[in-house]
Amino acid sequence: MTTRITAVYRVKDSAAAIEARAKTIAVEQSVEMPVSAITKRSVLEKIVGEVESISDLGGGVFELRIGLAVSTTGLEAGQTLNMLFGNSSIHADIVLQDAIIPEEVVRAFGGPHHGIEGLRKRVGAGRRALTCSALKPQGLTPAELAERAAKFTRGGLDYIKDDHGLADQAYSPFAERVPAVAAAVRSAQDKVPTRYLPSLSGNLDQLRRQIDIVREAGLDGVLIAPMIVGVASFHALVRQNPDIAFMAHPAMAGAARIAPAFHLGKLFRLFGADATVFPNHGGRFGYTPEECRALAREALAPWGGVRHTVPVPAGGMTTDRVPEMLDFYGTDVMLLIGGGLLAAGPRLTEETKAFVDAVHAHGQG
Amino acid sequence: MTTRITAVYRVKDSAAAIEARAKTIAVEQSVEMPVSAITKRSVLEKIVGEVESISDLGGGVFELRIGLAVSTTGLEAGQTLNMLFGNSSIHADIVLQDAIIPEEVVRAFGGPHHGIEGLRKRVGAGRRALTCSALKPQGLTPAELAERAAKFTRGGLDYIKDDHGLADQAYSPFAERVPAVAAAVRSAQDKVPTRYLPSLSGNLDQLRRQIDIVREAGLDGVLIAPMIVGVASFHALVRQNPDIAFMAHPAMAGAARIAPAFHLGKLFRLFGADATVFPNHGGRFGYTPEECRALAREALAPWGGVRHTVPVPAGGMTTDRVPEMLDFYGTDVMLLIGGGLLAAGPRLTEETKAFVDAVHAHGQG
Repeated sequence: MTTRITAVYRVKDSAAAIEARAKTIAVEQSVEMPVSAITKRSVLEKIVGEVESISDLGGGVFELRIGLAVSTTGLEAGQTLNMLFGNSSIHADIVLQDAIIPEEVVRAFGGPHHGIEGLRKRVGAGRRALTCSALKPQGLTPAELAERAAKFTRGGLDYIKDDHGLADQAYSPFAERVPAVAAAVRSAQDKVPTRYLPSLSGNLDQLRRQIDIVREAGLDGVLIAPMIVGVASFHALVRQNPDIAFMAHPAMAGAARIAPAFHLGKLFRLFGADATVFPNHGGRFGYTPEECRALAREALAPWGGVRHTVPVPAGGMTTDRVPEMLDFYGTDVMLLIGGGLLAAGPRLTEETKAFVDAVHAHGQG
Repeated sequence: MTTRITAVYRVKDSAAAIEARAKTIAVEQSVEMPVSAITKRSVLEKIVGEVESISDLGGGVFELRIGLAVSTTGLEAGQTLNMLFGNSSIHADIVLQDAIIPEEVVRAFGGPHHGIEGLRKRVGAGRRALTCSALKPQGLTPAELAERAAKFTRGGLDYIKDDHGLADQAYSPFAERVPAVAAAVRSAQDKVPTRYLPSLSGNLDQLRRQIDIVREAGLDGVLIAPMIVGVASFHALVRQNPDIAFMAHPAMAGAARIAPAFHLGKLFRLFGADATVFPNHGGRFGYTPEECRALAREALAPWGGVRHTVPVPAGGMTTDRVPEMLDFYGTDVMLLIGGGLLAAGPRLTEETKAFVDAVHAHGQG
């Protein structure tokens, strides 16, 4: 028997055309050639994509379930994404909604090394929600960023991540910024062992050098944008660095074409994200509450032995939304407020503390 | 003075809101925090994105030109993409339409090593259009693919590329497929020194091992999907392998959100694609003739000393469209027919020859 990944697509088409369309997509995402010209029996049986079901969701939208042979993925992250959505990503009317991933594939990729339990344990958070903010803006020197990080730390945050725009720029080279910020965080720590997550960028050689710098600075976690570095590089880093926690950033995730719950929740989890940042509803981006809930559910759902990924709703959050967000997500979450704290200017430590207190106090009133 | 890349976005919004929206995007794609909380003068002047112009294109669509500081890119491919569209890719109503790239950035990335002249010279094509087909389907053994490649070669093709779905799978491992197909192509060559372009996949380590195999097999070109391997890995490979020609594949290019002409024409050219495959109008995908023409124009436009990228229209083409395609694109093009030839089954060599003859004969009648 051929083990298959079931890709779930949502497609806009007419009821009359949908059956042929489903077959077309099954061919596009597998052999990409006229099936009539395939003479080899094993290719027809084991390789060509198989339409498993077609459901009418109403409003001219259909859900197609298409079985794609696991053997075509080579169990490699980039090729898996290619088989799921490579060519079909170019069609404006197809959304990759989900995929049902067989156990052997889940085992092969392995998921996160730390997950929500690991990230809580590192900062001694018990069962409560985690807190996070972002080092910004671009253009500050390492010393200036370090000073800001110290204020965040004094406010009692669990995690401080680099802005995903901080890379390896002349005004703040990675090799200078990371030790400077790490030292500032360490010396400002009081009750909470605040963790700093530097943002990685570049090709695999550069990413590895950056991880070396991270480790030399005494750190054990990073921020990374899988759709920019490439899921293959992301997954290679995860497997090769089991001591490092990976927070995934959604930059270039083109969420309008791959359902956010699948992309940022399930797929990034499969490839090893310990935490996944996503735009919360009611912020600067257009995700709906339902999309956010579905994403958090994918990140936290039981999935064989795969660790949970921490959902990190963000993107224009403020401290006054903390109770509402914790009611919405529960405490299996990391709250990330960036600009909303930085807007406090000189009162950064106090604003940070107010955010941290709101999270710690929730549910205890 | 701050050197800036001018990013050109198309945004759906109301006339009343567009000015504020433009500022929001300029901030999102640069410092991503409240500008009012930025006290450092150099950040405000040199780092924060600058709205350069707003034009009403009609129909509720506006074109925004936003200057992004080159210093924020670190002159690294992934970070450049991040600055151009990282977070804004998540907004469904923003398209990255184009970017005006200053000379120092173009020089830093360098573009293709071979371009259209190099690809013509390798196969002795003079000024005529180039021909190409694709090795398919997945699931064949190396020997079966090699036999098929020999038939293509006897038909007189200039280039044979792997299907972008061929990766490093158990039924056809890269290390076995590539030497087998290369040998078959070599021994079937007659008048045309047909070139075989194996499809690369995986992380940078795997990509490099594959390039070693390519070189050992006596080959000098490859197929690669920059949006799957990551533009940083793609660009690193191009720079480190000046003897190898790179054909770019659009898989996962999410063309509905980044204008195809900019993405597959200009950006892939900047990062070093010698040839760029894209879905031709009237095929299996939804590009318009205007989008295709604009893409070919970007690939071939004068751009300082940057070599031209060969436009490779594909995606469901057939031999009877050859004259029309050559009238449309001129001869600075590589025509790629995959399934359309493979549908011929046992008459593959003859069908290939008919395609090749149609290209060679065009304009000589």
